[in-house]
Amino acid sequence: MSVKGTLYIVSAPSGAGKTSLVKALLEQDAQVRVSVSHTTRSMRPGEQDGVDYNFITMEQFDALIAENLFLEYADVFTNKYGTSRVWVEDELSRGVDVILEIDWQGAQQVRALMPEAVSVFILPPSQQELRKRLTGRGQDGSEVIDLRMSQAVNEMAHYNEFDYVVINDDFSTALAQLQAILTSQRLRLEVQHALHVDLLNDLLSA
Amino acid sequence: MSVKGTLYIVSAPSGAGKTSLVKALLEQDAQVRVSVSHTTRSMRPGEQDGVDYNFITMEQFDALIAENLFLEYADVFTNKYGTSRVWVEDELSRGVDVILEIDWQGAQQVRALMPEAVSVFILPPSQQELRKRLTGRGQDGSEVIDLRMSQAVNEMAHYNEFDYVVINDDFSTALAQLQAILTSQRLRLEVQHALHVDLLNDLLSA
Repeated sequence: MSVKGTLYIVSAPSGAGKTSLVKALLEQDAQVRVSVSHTTRSMRPGEQDGVDYNFITMEQFDALIAENLFLEYADVFTNKYGTSRVWVEDELSRGVDVILEIDWQGAQQVRALMPEAVSVFILPPSQQELRKRLTGRGQDGSEVIDLRMSQAVNEMAHYNEFDYVVINDDFSTALAQLQAILTSQRLRLEVQHALHVDLLNDLLSA
Repeated sequence: MSVKGTLYIVSAPSGAGKTSLVKALLEQDAQVRVSVSHTTRSMRPGEQDGVDYNFITMEQFDALIAENLFLEYADVFTNKYGTSRVWVEDELSRGVDVILEIDWQGAQQVRALMPEAVSVFILPPSQQELRKRLTGRGQDGSEVIDLRMSQAVNEMAHYNEFDYVVINDDFSTALAQLQAILTSQRLRLEVQHALHVDLLNDLLSA
C-alpha cells in the first residue's frame, strides 16, 4: 500500500475535553494513532514511560533538537516537551493516520514543516461551562481558576488558524464530528486513487 | 444566519446507486436538499411536475438559456435537461446545502461557475457487479447491456475530476461516507466561524 496516512493536529484549551475525545476516537477507529510526546519532566505516580510520555533527560532532549528530530517542541516552565519527527513519519508512511495533541504554538511549528497536516480546534460550548470544568472539584481558589481561564482564552484566540472547529457540547456529537473529519479525509480523490488502483483499472477497462 | 449552504455535485455511472444514496441521505439529513432539474422531455406515468422534474417546453428552455438562468444544461438525444441557477442560489443563501445529481459534463460547467462546489463521484465495487446491476431483470439483449457498460465507462473516466470518491459496495457504509463528507464540510472554520459568532465572542471575552 503506497497511501500515506494523514497527520492531524488537535488543539484546545484545557477544559474543552480534547483528551477524552481523542481517547474515544482511538477506541473506535483502528486506522489512527496518537503521538506520545517526549518530555524532560519527572514521571508522576501512575504514569508509564512510552505510554503517557517518553521520559528523557534534558541532555537527550537537547541532542534531539540539535539533530533536528522534533516536529515541534516547547519550553513549559523549566521542562521541555516535543513531538518526535521520526515516529510520526514512520507511522504516516505505513498508511496510519497520526494525531498530535499540541497547543497553538506547536501547531504553528508543525504546519510550517508539514503544511498538508489537517488541523482541528475543539471549543467548549460556553464560557460558563468552561469555568465549571476548570473549577474541577472546587479545591482551588478563584485566582488559580482565573489564571486557568486566561490561559484558556490565550489558547482559544488561535482557533481561526485551524481547518476545522468542533464544539464539544454533547460528547457523542463532538466525537461523531471528529470521526466525520477523519472519514471524509480518507475519501479524498488522492487517497482513494492510491488505495483502489486495481478497482479503477478493472472498472475503466470494461 | 449569514452562513451560506454548500453546493455538492454528485456524479456516477448508471448502476452505481447514486439516486438511492442521495434519497437515503435526504431522509436522514434535514439540512440538505436536491435540485429538481428542468427538462423538455414528456412526463412519464407516475412522474410529478416539480418533484421528478420541472417539465417545460423547448421554447421556455431556450428562453432560460438566453437569460443565462442555468447553472448547467445538456442536450440528451432530442431533449434538454438543466439546473436552475436561481433556485440553487436561493437555497444556498438560506443556508441550505444543495445536491446536484448531474453527469461529468454538467459537473464541469458548474465548477466553472461555482468553483467552491464540493464534488463527489460514486463508483460501483467491481466491473462484474456493475454489469449485474446494468443487466437489470434480464430483459435486455447483450448489445443493450454492452452499450450501457460503455456509457458507464465513459462517465467513470472522469472520476479524477472530483474532490471525493465513494465506493458503493455496502450501501450503509457508502451512505455513512457520503454523510461524513457533508458533516465535515459544516465543521470547516469559515462555516463554524459564521455560525457561532456569539459563542466565540463569549469565549474570547472570558
